[in-house]
Amino acid sequence: MNIDMIEAAAQRLAGHVRRTPLLGSPFLDEIAGRRVFVKPECLQHTGSFKFRGGYSAMSALDAETRARGVLAYSSGNHAQGVALAARLHGAPAVILMPADAPAVKLDNTRRLGAEVVTYDRANGESREAIGAALARERGLTLIRPFDEPQVIAGQGTTGLEIAEQAAAVGVSQADVLVCCGGGGLTSGIALALQAKAPGLRARPVEPSGFNDTARSLISGRIERNDRISGSICDAIITPSPGEITFPILRRLCGPGLVVSEDDCLRAMAAAFARLRIVIEPGGAVALAAALYHPETVDGDAVIAVASGGNVDAAMFTRALDSFGDGS
Amino acid sequence: MNIDMIEAAAQRLAGHVRRTPLLGSPFLDEIAGRRVFVKPECLQHTGSFKFRGGYSAMSALDAETRARGVLAYSSGNHAQGVALAARLHGAPAVILMPADAPAVKLDNTRRLGAEVVTYDRANGESREAIGAALARERGLTLIRPFDEPQVIAGQGTTGLEIAEQAAAVGVSQADVLVCCGGGGLTSGIALALQAKAPGLRARPVEPSGFNDTARSLISGRIERNDRISGSICDAIITPSPGEITFPILRRLCGPGLVVSEDDCLRAMAAAFARLRIVIEPGGAVALAAALYHPETVDGDAVIAVASGGNVDAAMFTRALDSFGDGS
Repeated sequence: MNIDMIEAAAQRLAGHVRRTPLLGSPFLDEIAGRRVFVKPECLQHTGSFKFRGGYSAMSALDAETRARGVLAYSSGNHAQGVALAARLHGAPAVILMPADAPAVKLDNTRRLGAEVVTYDRANGESREAIGAALARERGLTLIRPFDEPQVIAGQGTTGLEIAEQAAAVGVSQADVLVCCGGGGLTSGIALALQAKAPGLRARPVEPSGFNDTARSLISGRIERNDRISGSICDAIITPSPGEITFPILRRLCGPGLVVSEDDCLRAMAAAFARLRIVIEPGGAVALAAALYHPETVDGDAVIAVASGGNVDAAMFTRALDSFGDGS
Repeated sequence: MNIDMIEAAAQRLAGHVRRTPLLGSPFLDEIAGRRVFVKPECLQHTGSFKFRGGYSAMSALDAETRARGVLAYSSGNHAQGVALAARLHGAPAVILMPADAPAVKLDNTRRLGAEVVTYDRANGESREAIGAALARERGLTLIRPFDEPQVIAGQGTTGLEIAEQAAAVGVSQADVLVCCGGGGLTSGIALALQAKAPGLRARPVEPSGFNDTARSLISGRIERNDRISGSICDAIITPSPGEITFPILRRLCGPGLVVSEDDCLRAMAAAFARLRIVIEPGGAVALAAALYHPETVDGDAVIAVASGGNVDAAMFTRALDSFGDGS
């Protein structure tokens, strides 16, 4: 993994990915006690940064392989990102999803043109085994959600944009807080910043109780979460950082940050009132750290990536009902 | 008013205004039966396009006049746009607001650095008389919300961006639906499109019962609304189109469109679920027309301006509770 792969991905993505703006509000600056900039990847195609990685991986395949189609395991944002990227390439996509995933997620993925194959999570069916069999039968290429170089390269294009946009607002030294699951987005951004804006330091942010990456950065080896369910931040919960992502995180990132679920809901309310964007709980961890844990951040400015916005109305109204304007 | 004034405003606004992206979603395309593009000015500084006009007017003043300060009448978006524009110029701003305006609006305007002077709407105090006296006493310059050439020029910069962004997605013939109050945004966009993208046609959209502009375009003279209160689309309710804006609208715009309040709430829900943006009822009329009245629009693509996102949580959750994902 290196910056050349990210720049090559940026070339392939040009005109297909959305260049999301860099947002901010004096009201958020007041809360944090420093300038706060938000990179709203919730505005990306399919509502999360995952489209970048999906499109990057898809566009990196040779034409013949691509024409046979791709396979992804996901109940959420990666599924939609890969589905749309495949459709834009005119290639088939098979998405393996738990049969008990919310109906709206199954439906949305199908409506983006993917074939959805369900498996029974409760009966202990292994998605890996089912996926491997499907891939073999149909000649599909598996696109892993984060431990996949071309996926990391795609996510890293977010970092290229941040480097340019930070320079445009005069920020050359700052922490860049990134919502972190398996580390694909965080490692990609870290690589991009190292090359393009070395005064900007990527830092992973996770929800409390699921801080595998923060602990891994402390111990120096891959640590695992005790459990991977039961968080409202489900979009960014993974068992552990990846074999490819973790060495990058360890080499380039600052210490991990951890926020509570209430911090996330409060940050969603603040983003609603002050930025007029919709973010999901997992996509709110970085902004939550910037706003409500300013003592853990260095510098007179901070950049927070809002990684996704695929949240249902019930959860969103819960955030607004509980936390007003997030201040 | 001409394109040169808009281009000059764009020069002054460069680096200060946000270039909002052009958003879309295959799910919205399905609803409308054609490609739908949304220009989200809710992501603009202070949450609406009004910052463009405020900044344009402020930056067009000579230094001495500007240093004495500006005055605006507004209970909403224009107030915040002028307040922030004044602060960024280091100039005082006095905003005349009804004493019974929502406390949060008074507070937000003050927190943006403006001095808020209230008047009693119920007792029939004339804001014009109070404003004129204040302006005279303090040497303040009045910045009208729409019937003001430099304000129209600033709003017109939205149209310059739409012209470029539409070309980038291959759209050269389309209706551009614009949320319309006094016509500052609509006339500015219409002028910009005439010069830069003559295949794009601006069309004003209004809420039912407050369709002064639609009726004026039919009769060929300025028609008035019977009332100017009682709409959830309060951000875009004015007595009539302006003396400066109406001749431009008449010369350049297609027929006006009218939507119901429920259409607006439904469009807010669709924008939440499919674009992950927050729009206010008055900022939703154009998207509502695009999605739910497709028979009134021409062409295989449509562009809708989402003019603002300053909505309180209660109204927003009402939209989500009533209309799900807006489909």
